[in-house]
Amino acid sequence: MSEKRIVSGEDYIQSLRGRGLKVYLLGELVVEPVDHPLIRPSINALAKTYDLALEQPELATALSPFIGERVNRFLHVAMSAQEVAMQGEMQRRLGQLTGTCFQRCVGMDAFNALYSVTYEIDEKHGTPYHARLKAFIERMQRANYVIGGAMTDVKGDRSKGPAGQADPDLFVHVTRRTSDGVYIRGAKAHQTGCINSHWLVVMPTQRMGAEEADYAIVGALPVDAQGTTYIYGRQSCDTRSLEGGTLDVGNAQYSGQEALIIFEDAFIPNELIFMNGETEFAAMLVERFTSFHRRSYVCKSGVGDVLIGAAAAIADYHGVEKASHIRDKLVEMTHLNETIYATGMASSYQSQATKSGSYLCNDLLANVCKHNVTRFPFEIGRLAQDLAGGLMVTMPSEADFRSEDTGPLLDKYLKARADVPTEQRLRMLRLIENMTLGRNAVGYLTESLHGAGSPQAQRIQIYRQMNLEAKKQLAKRLAGIEEG
Amino acid sequence: MSEKRIVSGEDYIQSLRGRGLKVYLLGELVVEPVDHPLIRPSINALAKTYDLALEQPELATALSPFIGERVNRFLHVAMSAQEVAMQGEMQRRLGQLTGTCFQRCVGMDAFNALYSVTYEIDEKHGTPYHARLKAFIERMQRANYVIGGAMTDVKGDRSKGPAGQADPDLFVHVTRRTSDGVYIRGAKAHQTGCINSHWLVVMPTQRMGAEEADYAIVGALPVDAQGTTYIYGRQSCDTRSLEGGTLDVGNAQYSGQEALIIFEDAFIPNELIFMNGETEFAAMLVERFTSFHRRSYVCKSGVGDVLIGAAAAIADYHGVEKASHIRDKLVEMTHLNETIYATGMASSYQSQATKSGSYLCNDLLANVCKHNVTRFPFEIGRLAQDLAGGLMVTMPSEADFRSEDTGPLLDKYLKARADVPTEQRLRMLRLIENMTLGRNAVGYLTESLHGAGSPQAQRIQIYRQMNLEAKKQLAKRLAGIEEG
Amino acid sequence: MSEKRIVSGEDYIQSLRGRGLKVYLLGELVVEPVDHPLIRPSINALAKTYDLALEQPELATALSPFIGERVNRFLHVAMSAQEVAMQGEMQRRLGQLTGTCFQRCVGMDAFNALYSVTYEIDEKHGTPYHARLKAFIERMQRANYVIGGAMTDVKGDRSKGPAGQADPDLFVHVTRRTSDGVYIRGAKAHQTGCINSHWLVVMPTQRMGAEEADYAIVGALPVDAQGTTYIYGRQSCDTRSLEGGTLDVGNAQYSGQEALIIFEDAFIPNELIFMNGETEFAAMLVERFTSFHRRSYVCKSGVGDVLIGAAAAIADYHGVEKASHIRDKLVEMTHLNETIYATGMASSYQSQATKSGSYLCNDLLANVCKHNVTRFPFEIGRLAQDLAGGLMVTMPSEADFRSEDTGPLLDKYLKARADVPTEQRLRMLRLIENMTLGRNAVGYLTESLHGAGSPQAQRIQIYRQMNLEAKKQLAKRLAGIEEG
Amino acid sequence: MSEKRIVSGEDYIQSLRGRGLKVYLLGELVVEPVDHPLIRPSINALAKTYDLALEQPELATALSPFIGERVNRFLHVAMSAQEVAMQGEMQRRLGQLTGTCFQRCVGMDAFNALYSVTYEIDEKHGTPYHARLKAFIERMQRANYVIGGAMTDVKGDRSKGPAGQADPDLFVHVTRRTSDGVYIRGAKAHQTGCINSHWLVVMPTQRMGAEEADYAIVGALPVDAQGTTYIYGRQSCDTRSLEGGTLDVGNAQYSGQEALIIFEDAFIPNELIFMNGETEFAAMLVERFTSFHRRSYVCKSGVGDVLIGAAAAIADYHGVEKASHIRDKLVEMTHLNETIYATGMASSYQSQATKSGSYLCNDLLANVCKHNVTRFPFEIGRLAQDLAGGLMVTMPSEADFRSEDTGPLLDKYLKARADVPTEQRLRMLRLIENMTLGRNAVGYLTESLHGAGSPQAQRIQIYRQMNLEAKKQLAKRLAGIEEG
Repeated sequence: MSEKRIVSGEDYIQSLRGRGLKVYLLGELVVEPVDHPLIRPSINALAKTYDLALEQPELATALSPFIGERVNRFLHVAMSAQEVAMQGEMQRRLGQLTGTCFQRCVGMDAFNALYSVTYEIDEKHGTPYHARLKAFIERMQRANYVIGGAMTDVKGDRSKGPAGQADPDLFVHVTRRTSDGVYIRGAKAHQTGCINSHWLVVMPTQRMGAEEADYAIVGALPVDAQGTTYIYGRQSCDTRSLEGGTLDVGNAQYSGQEALIIFEDAFIPNELIFMNGETEFAAMLVERFTSFHRRSYVCKSGVGDVLIGAAAAIADYHGVEKASHIRDKLVEMTHLNETIYATGMASSYQSQATKSGSYLCNDLLANVCKHNVTRFPFEIGRLAQDLAGGLMVTMPSEADFRSEDTGPLLDKYLKARADVPTEQRLRMLRLIENMTLGRNAVGYLTESLHGAGSPQAQRIQIYRQMNLEAKKQLAKRLAGIEEG
Repeated sequence: MSEKRIVSGEDYIQSLRGRGLKVYLLGELVVEPVDHPLIRPSINALAKTYDLALEQPELATALSPFIGERVNRFLHVAMSAQEVAMQGEMQRRLGQLTGTCFQRCVGMDAFNALYSVTYEIDEKHGTPYHARLKAFIERMQRANYVIGGAMTDVKGDRSKGPAGQADPDLFVHVTRRTSDGVYIRGAKAHQTGCINSHWLVVMPTQRMGAEEADYAIVGALPVDAQGTTYIYGRQSCDTRSLEGGTLDVGNAQYSGQEALIIFEDAFIPNELIFMNGETEFAAMLVERFTSFHRRSYVCKSGVGDVLIGAAAAIADYHGVEKASHIRDKLVEMTHLNETIYATGMASSYQSQATKSGSYLCNDLLANVCKHNVTRFPFEIGRLAQDLAGGLMVTMPSEADFRSEDTGPLLDKYLKARADVPTEQRLRMLRLIENMTLGRNAVGYLTESLHGAGSPQAQRIQIYRQMNLEAKKQLAKRLAGIEEG
Repeated sequence: MSEKRIVSGEDYIQSLRGRGLKVYLLGELVVEPVDHPLIRPSINALAKTYDLALEQPELATALSPFIGERVNRFLHVAMSAQEVAMQGEMQRRLGQLTGTCFQRCVGMDAFNALYSVTYEIDEKHGTPYHARLKAFIERMQRANYVIGGAMTDVKGDRSKGPAGQADPDLFVHVTRRTSDGVYIRGAKAHQTGCINSHWLVVMPTQRMGAEEADYAIVGALPVDAQGTTYIYGRQSCDTRSLEGGTLDVGNAQYSGQEALIIFEDAFIPNELIFMNGETEFAAMLVERFTSFHRRSYVCKSGVGDVLIGAAAAIADYHGVEKASHIRDKLVEMTHLNETIYATGMASSYQSQATKSGSYLCNDLLANVCKHNVTRFPFEIGRLAQDLAGGLMVTMPSEADFRSEDTGPLLDKYLKARADVPTEQRLRMLRLIENMTLGRNAVGYLTESLHGAGSPQAQRIQIYRQMNLEAKKQLAKRLAGIEEG
Repeated sequence: MSEKRIVSGEDYIQSLRGRGLKVYLLGELVVEPVDHPLIRPSINALAKTYDLALEQPELATALSPFIGERVNRFLHVAMSAQEVAMQGEMQRRLGQLTGTCFQRCVGMDAFNALYSVTYEIDEKHGTPYHARLKAFIERMQRANYVIGGAMTDVKGDRSKGPAGQADPDLFVHVTRRTSDGVYIRGAKAHQTGCINSHWLVVMPTQRMGAEEADYAIVGALPVDAQGTTYIYGRQSCDTRSLEGGTLDVGNAQYSGQEALIIFEDAFIPNELIFMNGETEFAAMLVERFTSFHRRSYVCKSGVGDVLIGAAAAIADYHGVEKASHIRDKLVEMTHLNETIYATGMASSYQSQATKSGSYLCNDLLANVCKHNVTRFPFEIGRLAQDLAGGLMVTMPSEADFRSEDTGPLLDKYLKARADVPTEQRLRMLRLIENMTLGRNAVGYLTESLHGAGSPQAQRIQIYRQMNLEAKKQLAKRLAGIEEG
């Protein structure tokens, strides 16, 4: 791929063509992902991150101190709390515009986390990682590339660590070291937008023991690096995109993407290695990355905006928009949605400077944000389905609606308010289905549970951060307890 | 169709063949629904109601006082509270066995409601409905038919009643009366199992004003009555049943079914008419039917059992079954699931005799049961997804798993506990997907909201039944308030 | 105390006089509990169990097969599921009439549990406990006494069992055995209605190991047994009962009672010993007792009825009874309250015969009922406070209302609806305060958490009863998983 | 009162002496509130706002642009988002230090709201309110006074506005106008800290119609203005403060205060009038004030810190601090508590400049914060009670614990972990009781519902702010709906 700067979404889409990636989907090797109707909506969603930078540069670009130019905010290392907060605003906006996962946050969060961690590794070990990383970021900024952050290992038996698995490859690890670099093997699961990326940054998935040095590897590879295979994850209702219509798919333009990446002795050259066996920094990296990334789930408030709007629109179409219980449900949805937003934003506003000078969001509140995301979208979705009514799941297909035989019958009998075309009602119902059961429910619901760590991971982190000793002292003081 | 008694599930399936129903699905007229791979799982689910009667006759049959023989409990009019309770036990069991909606409750609830309502109409108006209904039930019992209860009109603009719609056909109504019977026009939406039924019982959808006599019609038609068209509702992931495999579909055997029925001047002969213009009884019918039917949602506790089992199994496969937070989530799921069961059963146990001698479940508790069903399956589903992990929505297709190219990679990298075959893990994840996002999520989630009335309908009914005056008196007495 | 049969509530109150109990309250020995204004409301609540038996004998009495007469239902051993269910109906009614804990359930549940457990001990060990117990129950039925069930030990360090405590007395245990009986030492905490009882039945608090035989003691003592001391528990706002008015106290008539009982070598004669060292039966006793007793929390639905009524009445007084959000909150309160009721009743209806012939409620549902009780009253209380408005906690005292200086000002300015006397409003607010913050909040909220076992105890029991293996099999079958 | 600058908490307490306020409490005129044991804890809590300014001046003071000196932050008009955010940090800290309501926020929020509103009134009407207000604020800053904001009218029949009441005095209104000023009559309910204030700012309670000009009055009065009477609100367990001990009261040092203020033709001179009949600005004032004030409920996260600490401490004392369900409950409490904090802080960080130059917090998020406060403290409180155990409400009195007769028994039998003195356990339980049922439950629970507007008030405001039209457009765009 050429490193000519990508500017527009259209440029971006062109940049993905002809790369010869080994992508499997539904049992077949995909000839050109860009033209595959099941894949394309995920590319469109990512393309929106480029177009937004053109449409709202204040929001979606930032001045890079590295190259002295404005760059896409997804490639920028935040140097103030305000810049961290601006990430959140941009994420909500993109959620509103796509109604799904736009896939570019992982790379942003990886760069932001690695920037400070490499600084601190170097400080301790005298390694050259920070400078290498900065050079790599500069190169990515100039080309305006998409970076996939590859962290989640497949993990095998969850009761055992990397070293305890029957198969050592169940966590990505270094299989061979040469003077030029390292070879890695293993697989990364649930890789958001990986096929739509230009580069991958591989990172360890959890804290590592001293004996797990081969697993403590961080480095960058181009997506088409030799020995790399992608197997596309299937999503609820994914094949509706292959049916040809625009109605049943709900959100015809946009979707998320997650795939399994398999590395079979893929090579990372020395200048793209950013950690190599410094096991004691694995936990710091994971924690800083998840801190940024859990706060990134503020994007779901933008997706929630769409679902609230859809629920309000369908209430209009049904003629019940003034019923008090309808209004009340819209208020509840909004209350929950804004709580997600506010907890994420508070984490960003309370960012603190790291030793490297970059800013890191508040970890406790980042976990609180994400933990709310594991709950509230499900309730918002339930309320949206409540307002949608049962037709959402009993409605005939677009083909029936277009058919000469049944089309007129459906047009007549599925009409709600007399002045609203039946098709508008059907479209809105399919959008709600898409977001609560269908393709984008994957991102809005299930991924809201597990992305950036499952609920229990947040609870563990909240436990670590909650400073119980100080709170006990507050209570003892007020209770009049003096300890000896 | 012959009226030879249907005994087994297999008999039942045969009985559905060759009926020449006008069924449209995905834009095409279906040649033989029984052989359509998308439809067949719904037939299998209904067939299970026959097989259970053979396997557990105590549970799934009852002695009919009308014909003096044991009949399928779905065709029986309950003559004691214990018999009403046994309905609930049978429903939970069928939920456990099919993991979906087995579609035969509507007819049972319709018969049980109509039995007492026709008695009371006759008492007031001297009409012959009760005897007609009894004769019809006897005939159905002898043949062991499936009855579809057709109540929910398409309703058009929800801010207006039948008389206020721009199009009078948006509620089913009598278009013509002859000495032999009546002709009806209109459509019934979300008709559970209608294509899998032998007969339909049409009923009004809500209370009617005196001027809406043409809408107050109750009567029976064979499913293949002239002027009847069915358009199949599409469900999340429905076309996976057309893909040929058994894995991605999650629950290959069973599904629910809902379709739109359109009546274009379909005829009901006099002897099958059970209400005809007695508008003041429409509300009583709707209330008694929904009372039975809301309590019927106890079946979801059986579906919940499957989902709890699936969540427990996947935890085993992942090696985390002993983690305290995993156990705790299984307990929470069970607590909620048993609360559904208990509220439904309490309603049944507290049934009271009607004037006709049949028993009617407790309406307040029936509404409480259903209202819990509008909430808890969503939380149970969320917890199931929590235990499943993200792979549930990022897992490649069965075709990739069967492929020579990618199969071995997937087998290697998607293995969890070393002693559990990867395919078992994948199957269990697809089952959870099926129940929380896919085809059977339609029945377990969305239909749990709207079936037998949307949440607000239960709240209105609870308000009517909650006897606030008596409660205020209790409070005033204890507060020492004496009113003049 | 004489064993002349107690009939009315008034008889009962007389029966408590002059017993010379050693009761301490607020630092002083109480001369006559019956006349103590802080204690009396708890006696009144218990007295209501006698009066109800006179007013609604069908509800509150049962035919004893032991003495062949109708006896108070609280002294009856249930011999059918219907009789177990009738306990629940009676309990709800008494909750409605008193708005608090009427304290007589523990004895009922103890008799019902011991009846079957002693039978099974005897069956194994050839002991005479069952006959002894029956004789004791007959005596209690003839005299119509109140039985306090003394189970909960003070427990010391919760990380250790009886044998592990620094002080062996932290669990009640036998200190000496003679040919006539046993001497016990220790303390029982949170003893509901103990001072208002005639007899106590002491029981172990948890499962016991073989080395803890001295702790596996069950027997009966009169409340005034030598070596028995009572220290009265203080309750929120308890001293308002000492202030002389009737308004600020909220519910002037009724309250609960819990005290600490200390046994210092109290004697139990052989004929009143019902378990003595059969440690392997301690768990069975605790489980059966808590099964009955957790289901007994159905009483809180009666208390909930009062609180719902109070909330509805205050809405009337404020002139907002027709606001949709007000109605909706009353519906929500009712929905939750009836869910408590229904889960308790379902447990009762599903009672099964024990070997002894008595009936035992369904344990899983009993735990589900109680677990709902640990949650819903808090939400019902929150909603009641929502409807009450802030004045509930900022309202001046009754003394200010009666004062010449401030009374007219308060009468003028605290008036809500013009046609409702200000005092009625104040009384209703104080009742809600009483039930959500004050004296009866102890029973409605905190005791709802901990009575009959804290929330985690129910979760453990639900885990034991939830039959996960069977559920996993259901899921595997539907997922198409065949295990080797 | 002299206008010598108050510096320390001790100065403040002295400043309250000898003012001759007409305060009634428990039916009697209070001689000196400062020395009244029931009132004093509320004064202590307010005094803490002075001491904190000495201890942590960065946190609790700000540089006044009006007088060019650092002033107590409670008297400061915020001139940047950061300053608004600092209010929230200070409020949480004071919640942690007092465990209750420290009463000084209303004045702060009133000044901040009035500053911009008077500016805008003047802009439209050419009135001199802004300059007057500034002069008044300067005077208050120099003296470091406490300002009570008097907004909530008693309101009478809630179905009617001021003009519709049977008694016109049920909303405070101008009864007479002279060339020097106005006379007002009426009452303000639930007046937080009013008796502990030096000055009151009277404000209208809701939007006003043009015919309600006499009700649209804003002005300042000294607390001892002629014609002003205070009647103290009673709180749950308030009289425990009169009993003499330090244990049963739970939090011996601190409490909140709310009283009824009655104005009987109290006078406000022209130079202290800040609105006088400009009815169209009443809504703006109420909205801006409640916006600040709802966000001020972030203080409850500080109170929550105390309760979490108390729950953690009691778990330690009981020896169960390592049980997974205990940890999990502490995590849940923290998660909810931090959600309150984060929503409040996000509202502050997103403050915008008003025309006057002062900053106003984000209204939507302020309402979201407060709405969370109407829910989460109840759940946090429930969980704290869960960890406390039943002894919290069955524990004998301090007098029993101090008594020679019963003290040793209680010391022995109420001991939990052997190395923790029994008294420490009792103290911690009383603190939890204090915060969930007792005196400070008033502020932590009930006031969390109603302070700054009851839950429905937030829902109405969220509805107004949620921008449904824009959200509908987002949904329509993604659903592919084009409107004509």
